[in-house]
Amino acid sequence: MTKLPAGVWGVVATPFHDDLEVDLDSLATLVRRYEELGVTGLTVLGVFGEAARLDGAERTRVLSTVIDAVDLPVVVGATTLATAPVIEEAELARRVAGSRLAGVMVQINSPTPAVLAAHLNAVHRATGVGLVVQDYPVASGVSMPLPAQIEALADVEGVVAVKAEAAPTAARVAALSDRFDVPVFGGLGGIGLIDELQAGAAGAMTGFSYPEGLLATIHAHRTGGFAAAREALAPYLPLIAFEQQPGIGLAIRKACLAHRKLIAGPAVRPPAPALPASLIPNLYEHLAAMEGLVTR
Amino acid sequence: MTKLPAGVWGVVATPFHDDLEVDLDSLATLVRRYEELGVTGLTVLGVFGEAARLDGAERTRVLSTVIDAVDLPVVVGATTLATAPVIEEAELARRVAGSRLAGVMVQINSPTPAVLAAHLNAVHRATGVGLVVQDYPVASGVSMPLPAQIEALADVEGVVAVKAEAAPTAARVAALSDRFDVPVFGGLGGIGLIDELQAGAAGAMTGFSYPEGLLATIHAHRTGGFAAAREALAPYLPLIAFEQQPGIGLAIRKACLAHRKLIAGPAVRPPAPALPASLIPNLYEHLAAMEGLVTR
Amino acid sequence: MTKLPAGVWGVVATPFHDDLEVDLDSLATLVRRYEELGVTGLTVLGVFGEAARLDGAERTRVLSTVIDAVDLPVVVGATTLATAPVIEEAELARRVAGSRLAGVMVQINSPTPAVLAAHLNAVHRATGVGLVVQDYPVASGVSMPLPAQIEALADVEGVVAVKAEAAPTAARVAALSDRFDVPVFGGLGGIGLIDELQAGAAGAMTGFSYPEGLLATIHAHRTGGFAAAREALAPYLPLIAFEQQPGIGLAIRKACLAHRKLIAGPAVRPPAPALPASLIPNLYEHLAAMEGLVTR
Amino acid sequence: MTKLPAGVWGVVATPFHDDLEVDLDSLATLVRRYEELGVTGLTVLGVFGEAARLDGAERTRVLSTVIDAVDLPVVVGATTLATAPVIEEAELARRVAGSRLAGVMVQINSPTPAVLAAHLNAVHRATGVGLVVQDYPVASGVSMPLPAQIEALADVEGVVAVKAEAAPTAARVAALSDRFDVPVFGGLGGIGLIDELQAGAAGAMTGFSYPEGLLATIHAHRTGGFAAAREALAPYLPLIAFEQQPGIGLAIRKACLAHRKLIAGPAVRPPAPALPASLIPNLYEHLAAMEGLVTR
Repeated sequence: MTKLPAGVWGVVATPFHDDLEVDLDSLATLVRRYEELGVTGLTVLGVFGEAARLDGAERTRVLSTVIDAVDLPVVVGATTLATAPVIEEAELARRVAGSRLAGVMVQINSPTPAVLAAHLNAVHRATGVGLVVQDYPVASGVSMPLPAQIEALADVEGVVAVKAEAAPTAARVAALSDRFDVPVFGGLGGIGLIDELQAGAAGAMTGFSYPEGLLATIHAHRTGGFAAAREALAPYLPLIAFEQQPGIGLAIRKACLAHRKLIAGPAVRPPAPALPASLIPNLYEHLAAMEGLVTR
Repeated sequence: MTKLPAGVWGVVATPFHDDLEVDLDSLATLVRRYEELGVTGLTVLGVFGEAARLDGAERTRVLSTVIDAVDLPVVVGATTLATAPVIEEAELARRVAGSRLAGVMVQINSPTPAVLAAHLNAVHRATGVGLVVQDYPVASGVSMPLPAQIEALADVEGVVAVKAEAAPTAARVAALSDRFDVPVFGGLGGIGLIDELQAGAAGAMTGFSYPEGLLATIHAHRTGGFAAAREALAPYLPLIAFEQQPGIGLAIRKACLAHRKLIAGPAVRPPAPALPASLIPNLYEHLAAMEGLVTR
Repeated sequence: MTKLPAGVWGVVATPFHDDLEVDLDSLATLVRRYEELGVTGLTVLGVFGEAARLDGAERTRVLSTVIDAVDLPVVVGATTLATAPVIEEAELARRVAGSRLAGVMVQINSPTPAVLAAHLNAVHRATGVGLVVQDYPVASGVSMPLPAQIEALADVEGVVAVKAEAAPTAARVAALSDRFDVPVFGGLGGIGLIDELQAGAAGAMTGFSYPEGLLATIHAHRTGGFAAAREALAPYLPLIAFEQQPGIGLAIRKACLAHRKLIAGPAVRPPAPALPASLIPNLYEHLAAMEGLVTR
Repeated sequence: MTKLPAGVWGVVATPFHDDLEVDLDSLATLVRRYEELGVTGLTVLGVFGEAARLDGAERTRVLSTVIDAVDLPVVVGATTLATAPVIEEAELARRVAGSRLAGVMVQINSPTPAVLAAHLNAVHRATGVGLVVQDYPVASGVSMPLPAQIEALADVEGVVAVKAEAAPTAARVAALSDRFDVPVFGGLGGIGLIDELQAGAAGAMTGFSYPEGLLATIHAHRTGGFAAAREALAPYLPLIAFEQQPGIGLAIRKACLAHRKLIAGPAVRPPAPALPASLIPNLYEHLAAMEGLVTR
């Protein structure tokens, strides 16, 4: 399997009209902007793409819209935790994305190494797709200690990347990069990106509303190491921290994307909480500050 | 909408062959046995039916097998928490079960009354199906205080039953039965059944491997009140308690069903944990003791 | 260190007057009744003794009252998770209980074997007290997989018992009893007692309001094995299950003890929830049913 | 009661020698440095002061050392959740700190407004101390929705401040500041400080290892609003984010303080996890970058 190339993989939000129907035009606009910015690839139907709030037909339309709109490779998220439905999701991803499918993102579904390894191997063998193993306990409900994770991954074929979103992420990136010949990506909006890059991360796979900041940081790290990466990321961190707040993070992110006119409106599907009205003025302060940093 | 009739609703396990493929023959045997025993209806594709571990085609086959095998009304579980995919699941249930569909079991998806009410109303209006509202935080990850639940349900159309599986269940049964003209069922393997009946429960909706015990208890309660129900349930409680253990409960239940020859084998799909070998002799002690209670 | 003798260790509730002051007279009455019933020993200042809701002077008075009222050996619970305050609690226990101290109950404080082992060894070495290692994630917030627990305990001196209250308890009892020469006790109100005895448990350490049921079960198990133990426990299980409900379990237990006149009143200290009024009639049904079983 | 004055309240780490004994000399050095920097006050024996890992004598020594070393007002943390032991802790704080005691920090102990209100009122009435109400679910295990919190606080006397550490903190700061005439402080290492200030926060009460950054941000906010505060905080955010990592955050913070020679060594008491070795080089990169920002 081809490992995922390094860089920024943009986790694509799924835009909705005000009536909560999927807004495919906005989706196309959004991913074209990602392509213009120079991201390495896109991650579609992930947790922050609200895939778990879409029905099957919507997922298909979202994915095919992305495939049609840009030429980037795509990772497709699986929303379930058991083998049969993950295989079903992976088959759909392969059918729709075809040769553009860089991998299917599969969540860690058990703290027991043999169970996880069997799951991942079954998905890979049934579908032939490359696996992006996502360690994200907040979404999956499954916490796996690092030694168990290493034990499991040693027995799995077809892994093309790991996405490390369990604390402390940088320590996990270091251990996994050291042990396996596989790229490890940070997520979590980029809040720990410089530490993850120092630990050997291949890049960021996340949906921060100003991906320019992630791209600049990775570029700076390549040429100037920690100090340069730190300087590149610091001006984005106030908004990253604001956007990373549990619960309302997605609503903030979509409001930012709407403000940037990358999507038409900021709607999120329930039960995701909406943006508290008291925070809207503050959000505009953040957005105003961003204007000094990025064009458009 | 027709409210669910009182009594025992058997939560149907999904049997698997040793290779973890769905065993439809066993499924038909199992539900026919439920019908012979005289249950009021069946709940298919619930949490303990491992619906979340089946792909779409498997779910369809499971449901149509049940519909073909028996004449009982069925409640069909939805595995997801957001409106669009729950509607998709409800549509499938309606298409396959037709007029035999007594309701779709929808989990509480938010602690916020307005969010839950909008969700339930949207599902009902889009599909016309009756709603069995399931309050089961262990499965959904969502805990809703009782006052908020009452506030939400006051604004929802189409509710045909509530399934109360959040502690203390009997207090919730009492409050909901008192406030709404809707049957409330206990679950949790029947461990609190007599208390729930005393609180006004319409019956049990659960998958205890000896449904005879649930039926006998409800019958006894109707004729002899608490004391009779208590006497009827007590001999089953040692196994109910054993079967209710977190994690391994499903494996125990399927091992019992297999021992009873109601299903061919006890396999569960990962990541559900298997039965620890150290408990197998103990399980056989329980099963031997059951033989004095029920005709196999 | 002397291992804890087998049998029933009564977990002693701390009675309060209506104004929530400690009721030492009731406490003396309660523990004398335990002694008359023939329990092996008492566990004082445990989780269900509300030790975490007592101040230091109250803890001392509770413990010295028990010591003065009966001749039984006592295990004293520690309420904290770090080494220094546990040592402080253990010193207090030793000072007040003297030679009557059978052990200090220390909670598992880390899922990391080396951390737990160092903690337990430090407590033992600093105080010389025997350790009753309590595995109770609901109270401690710490879940430790069984293999890690075995690894930790292999390196600890001074363990006089283990109290297994993490699911599946019987499997844990089996593994620990098999591996170590140390008595393992079940807890959780006795809900899994027959399974734990079958797995090799030395007895029950719990506060069920009718300890007669626990005593009868253990006696029956010794003479008649599983079948006899099952028959002995079954009539108590309806109340055990009622009493084991999360949150309100302690309020139920104290209401039962008050009904039995073993304590003067049922008050619990907040933030423990009170007994919902809707359950009081039901509680009286349980208590009436108990009258056929035990001499008050 | 005198409300807490606005500004930075430094949450004081408890330094340990390599053998894990309390290092009072380092403690005095640390708090004198806080005083030189111009903090408004100190918070001693808080969660990140490892108060729950100290015994009673150690707590007394820590507090009296702080009182003797500086002239600042102090808030003293309570480690327990029930009324009697919190009163005991508050009495100790008052006895040792005397007129220097600005308040006792009491955690939210119940999601039920009446229970929390009764608890807080009881502590205040028994001791006369001012209350700093801490909303920190990660430490307390108690999550309280904002409306319930407002309902509770409306009935409580003696509140001198609220510390808002439940997401989304800025929305909580806005609502509480709007409703009550009481200062609300942010915590969480300062990660959301500019948003909290915009929402009306009176300042920060936290233990970030470079309090200069918090002071500069609050000063900038007073004079230049959001934009100035953002500019002031951004260079510190890379380290704040690194230090805020769940689990290892305290170890990082103490390593930073030791590097700054504000404490002699970085030891934390178990079960707090140590700093993973793989992150040490990264930590030094952060510290090197800080040298451009602060003197010493």
